[in-house]
Amino acid sequence: MVERIIGIDPGSRITGYGLIDVDRGQLHFVACGVVKTTPKYPFPNRLNEIFEGINEVVQLHDPGVAAVEDVFMSTNARSALKLGHARGAAVVAVMQNGLAVHDYSPRAVKQAVAGYGQADKVQVQHMVRVLLGLSGAPSSDAADALAVAICHANQFTI
Amino acid sequence: MVERIIGIDPGSRITGYGLIDVDRGQLHFVACGVVKTTPKYPFPNRLNEIFEGINEVVQLHDPGVAAVEDVFMSTNARSALKLGHARGAAVVAVMQNGLAVHDYSPRAVKQAVAGYGQADKVQVQHMVRVLLGLSGAPSSDAADALAVAICHANQFTI
Repeated sequence: MVERIIGIDPGSRITGYGLIDVDRGQLHFVACGVVKTTPKYPFPNRLNEIFEGINEVVQLHDPGVAAVEDVFMSTNARSALKLGHARGAAVVAVMQNGLAVHDYSPRAVKQAVAGYGQADKVQVQHMVRVLLGLSGAPSSDAADALAVAICHANQFTI
Repeated sequence: MVERIIGIDPGSRITGYGLIDVDRGQLHFVACGVVKTTPKYPFPNRLNEIFEGINEVVQLHDPGVAAVEDVFMSTNARSALKLGHARGAAVVAVMQNGLAVHDYSPRAVKQAVAGYGQADKVQVQHMVRVLLGLSGAPSSDAADALAVAICHANQFTI
């Protein structure tokens, strides 16, 4: 049985997404990309762009489950609030398509792809490329999203 | 011309909503209530309950514009993050119905209904009841949402 997973790395400016298929423990790349919000738009409109972008990707690729990266717990309440909005919009978009949502901490995601909870962005990009056998490295935000999807896949295959 | 405003006071447990009609500067009560999330549900499901609850209210009463209370800027990043999620879900629900969203700070809302930016919840409840000529006071969360709607109405009528 093939399971298709969408991984999402939410952000108020750029939300990364990545889809993989898991077939008897083997990971296969499906698609990845980013939803960019329009900086000059009011914040509610940008949240709507996240909702619609993720909704479109889900409807196009029809994943069976979603894995969303937890927001890094900064000590800055203002940025946490902003990220919370973005993450809420992305989560609601996948839930509205009937998908279950699993949360993974940034540390768990890095551990899953690089074997090290403090791995940096370049390491994550590199390992995602290796694990999925990609000819080029995806953008940092798309790689993070693929890493979340891989992290979810690992829960069931190791 | 009558304009119907929905005011929303978002929260991860209870989201208040209130609708008023503005007819040549006169405010008329339409409806108010709360969307309660199920405490035992995972957080993504609770966000979806907020989205669906607000979506239902908007489709039922068909307001022309939305006013949403800004989240109070606590110094606690964790609670700001949670509130951000709830607010994001509510904002996306109204935007998906084609409504423009206006943000008002708690201070502006209290100033609008009670003439005093530090007014307490009981004062807000009382003034909302007086301003809308209600026979009883709405619950605190619904009163806050009506106060946000009144705050928006005041931008154009005074």
